[in-house]
Amino acid sequence: MNQSEAFLDERVRMAAEAFQFLKSTTVAQRAAFMHAVADKIEGLGAELLETAHAETALPLPRLTGEKARTVGQWRTYANAVASGIYAEARIDLANSETGKSDIRKSNVGIGPVVVFGASNFPFAFSTAGGDTASAIGAGCPVIVKGHSGHTQTSTIMAEAITAVIKEIGWPEGVFSHILGNNIEGTDTKIGAYLTAHPLVKAVGFTGSYWGGKALFDIANQREEPIPVFAEMGSINPVFAFTHLLADRAEVLAQEYAASLTLGVGQFCTNPGVFVAVKGDGLERFKKALASAIVATAPATMLNTGIYAHYEKNKTTLSSQVDVAIIAESGIAAAQGQGSPAVVSTSASNFLKNRVLSEEVFGPFAVVVEAENDAEVLAIARQLKGQLTITIAATKEDVNEHQDIIHVVKDKAGRILFNGMPTGVEVVYAMQHGGPFPSCTDPRFTSVGPDSVKRFVRPLAFQNWPDEFLPEELKNENPLGIARIVDGAVVTTKSI
Amino acid sequence: MNQSEAFLDERVRMAAEAFQFLKSTTVAQRAAFMHAVADKIEGLGAELLETAHAETALPLPRLTGEKARTVGQWRTYANAVASGIYAEARIDLANSETGKSDIRKSNVGIGPVVVFGASNFPFAFSTAGGDTASAIGAGCPVIVKGHSGHTQTSTIMAEAITAVIKEIGWPEGVFSHILGNNIEGTDTKIGAYLTAHPLVKAVGFTGSYWGGKALFDIANQREEPIPVFAEMGSINPVFAFTHLLADRAEVLAQEYAASLTLGVGQFCTNPGVFVAVKGDGLERFKKALASAIVATAPATMLNTGIYAHYEKNKTTLSSQVDVAIIAESGIAAAQGQGSPAVVSTSASNFLKNRVLSEEVFGPFAVVVEAENDAEVLAIARQLKGQLTITIAATKEDVNEHQDIIHVVKDKAGRILFNGMPTGVEVVYAMQHGGPFPSCTDPRFTSVGPDSVKRFVRPLAFQNWPDEFLPEELKNENPLGIARIVDGAVVTTKSI
Repeated sequence: MNQSEAFLDERVRMAAEAFQFLKSTTVAQRAAFMHAVADKIEGLGAELLETAHAETALPLPRLTGEKARTVGQWRTYANAVASGIYAEARIDLANSETGKSDIRKSNVGIGPVVVFGASNFPFAFSTAGGDTASAIGAGCPVIVKGHSGHTQTSTIMAEAITAVIKEIGWPEGVFSHILGNNIEGTDTKIGAYLTAHPLVKAVGFTGSYWGGKALFDIANQREEPIPVFAEMGSINPVFAFTHLLADRAEVLAQEYAASLTLGVGQFCTNPGVFVAVKGDGLERFKKALASAIVATAPATMLNTGIYAHYEKNKTTLSSQVDVAIIAESGIAAAQGQGSPAVVSTSASNFLKNRVLSEEVFGPFAVVVEAENDAEVLAIARQLKGQLTITIAATKEDVNEHQDIIHVVKDKAGRILFNGMPTGVEVVYAMQHGGPFPSCTDPRFTSVGPDSVKRFVRPLAFQNWPDEFLPEELKNENPLGIARIVDGAVVTTKSI
Repeated sequence: MNQSEAFLDERVRMAAEAFQFLKSTTVAQRAAFMHAVADKIEGLGAELLETAHAETALPLPRLTGEKARTVGQWRTYANAVASGIYAEARIDLANSETGKSDIRKSNVGIGPVVVFGASNFPFAFSTAGGDTASAIGAGCPVIVKGHSGHTQTSTIMAEAITAVIKEIGWPEGVFSHILGNNIEGTDTKIGAYLTAHPLVKAVGFTGSYWGGKALFDIANQREEPIPVFAEMGSINPVFAFTHLLADRAEVLAQEYAASLTLGVGQFCTNPGVFVAVKGDGLERFKKALASAIVATAPATMLNTGIYAHYEKNKTTLSSQVDVAIIAESGIAAAQGQGSPAVVSTSASNFLKNRVLSEEVFGPFAVVVEAENDAEVLAIARQLKGQLTITIAATKEDVNEHQDIIHVVKDKAGRILFNGMPTGVEVVYAMQHGGPFPSCTDPRFTSVGPDSVKRFVRPLAFQNWPDEFLPEELKNENPLGIARIVDGAVVTTKSI
């Protein structure tokens, strides 16, 4: 073990020790902690925003909104945790006549969780982001590997969490912050070491397919396999239909261009593919889309690596056989600025050439022109798993294309009826996680309070005296949480 | 593709096609189907019991009970499905002032599920067992690989399910029954082929560690990894403490011997290890246990393979260094009959020699004699994941050994305060699934209505007109299920 590994090992051991504390906390105690973190982040001033702006080039208004969103995540997850919904308490009382035992079950944290921060959300999907909040809400210590693209921002957030831990008197190991530039070894090695560590019990990741899949493979080849929740992005196709295009091709093009170029296209829900049957509506859409793209200014991307990837991937897709450029930004790009571009191809070519289905992280889209509905259906059938699929349609279109709607339900975690997929709301009903390869596990979401579910496991107690049960399962229900008692939901009443 | 693979491929394709039907069924429709299956199984008469008895050597009273349990599983899971608890419907209404979208989410089946029947429960964990019931409840077609140990029993059960499918008019592909003796290729090859098939989306398995782990590895090396819920058994340690032993060593020995030898020890919750500190109480326990074991008759095991494994493993463990035989059945065993035996060893030897922690499937136990509490704690810490851990203790014992109790909470899915772990009740609060290697995924249970959760994934609808939403999410709540609307639980009211 070299010096870096010794450091990582020590932090993991501290997390494992802290788990011994955390697993005895109640949902109410964890919710109180989470609100304290929310307060602390809320109190961070201009320094946080300016540091993040300098590190990521994201505009200050966007960062201000993302900070509010991050605070909101801690608060809404805290409230959900406090309500007991993720304790999933079930009580089946003893029956002396049948000899049935008293059995009670509630969820506990799964153990130490390693979180890999994302490049594109320095607050909401990073050090103090949704993975960290949901893991702590579940009762799990967290070891964050901060993203190399915004280490100072990450450090400010880590210090906020650490300050709350000190104030509230929790063990230091509840939260660790690892930065690649502080220790030897590449980021990849750090990630591999942490994921393989026997005391680590789950991983949360937001990033590229290759990064997420590598961690998934390491986790499943361990002696004790562990879950990896990797959100790896997708191409988020928009399927547009004729009645809708006839009604509002130009408005749709405006909405689509705005979504595609929002944040320089650096969202995992960026709508990178647009599919429609050829015709007057599609021609109008393309024309309006071209105008919008030509008028959209290039903007600085998150970092030079992402910029370089974007330019390379854009060139690769644009130079495929039978691909035509519809429009590029008419405004010159400075170094590091991603320049929007849209290309078109035929459905048959899109079906044949899988390169055209690869995600391009940035403001780039492929417009797929189908000869008929059968080709659109074939594309829907061939799609890999997606975070989102959007149906741009009138009700009449939906009624006429039930077959396509039916198929896309298998291909995404969230399907939209009009609107655009960017702007992932932090609500109970959000599903941010679709079938593979958009995610490693479509059964869970990484946005919304339900993200807490990823990091719990049930623990059943049979015939235990009330005094030894966790508060979530005691007769008098001191936390006042909803529980299923003998098969029926019971809220505040003691039993 | 050879002829066998072509047959398997066809059945998987039929399942995938049937999924297109099943995914549009409501929780109410699936519950009605499940009750019809329960009725059909209930109506199966003496032929079923006699066939199972001939194939498994399990006594008729046990089989009668297991049949009732199986019927009960279909009914309780059906009622739980109908209640909507596993739809997990969440609705976040639109807000025109803030621009918030209408987002609604409920669970859908994950897709075709392959189920591997168990040897030791020909009804409850086999063809028409809990995995099949919970997968169909979730909305997933099922392909059962029937266990080779009871193919005729399996066929009778399969015919019952198929009959209901015909009566109710569902597609044939909702349920398939595969037997190794009907097609070419070994059971292992059939299992590997089905688990690797791209249209299969999850696997349920009950059996050995090697069988379950092999399927798990295949599933995770697919292009699209899928979840494998393998319940692989465990040694289910019993930790006994001094006050309890002082009070009732003899009664505990009777209970322990009865649990150990129940069903010739062929339960995954069989308590194969007993740990206590040396002393008068443990001596009394050993003496009473020896008497009970000597008096327990050998009995025919499920099949010759299991019998041969039992004898081999019993010999292996008994012949380890520093292992002494406490007692063996005093009654001669006929060929194929498993003969109960109990050995003892020191805690230091148990900690050192990992062979002694291996599961012996049958009526065999290791009594571990510790010098002090520190050795007991060391054993608790070293334990791998277990389905169950039993604490034989008085309240005073619990108060004096909080450290050990704290540790065992990390090591099992269910912890008992006295009583014995065999007899897994089919209730909401049951957790049948502990940390690896007792299971591949401790976050889920394979017994109880909650087993349905294994086979669903959430699907979110954004801004969809009410008429196109699944009934679980429509405004008027036609199914009357509990839903979380804007963060609060709402039961029957329309919104």
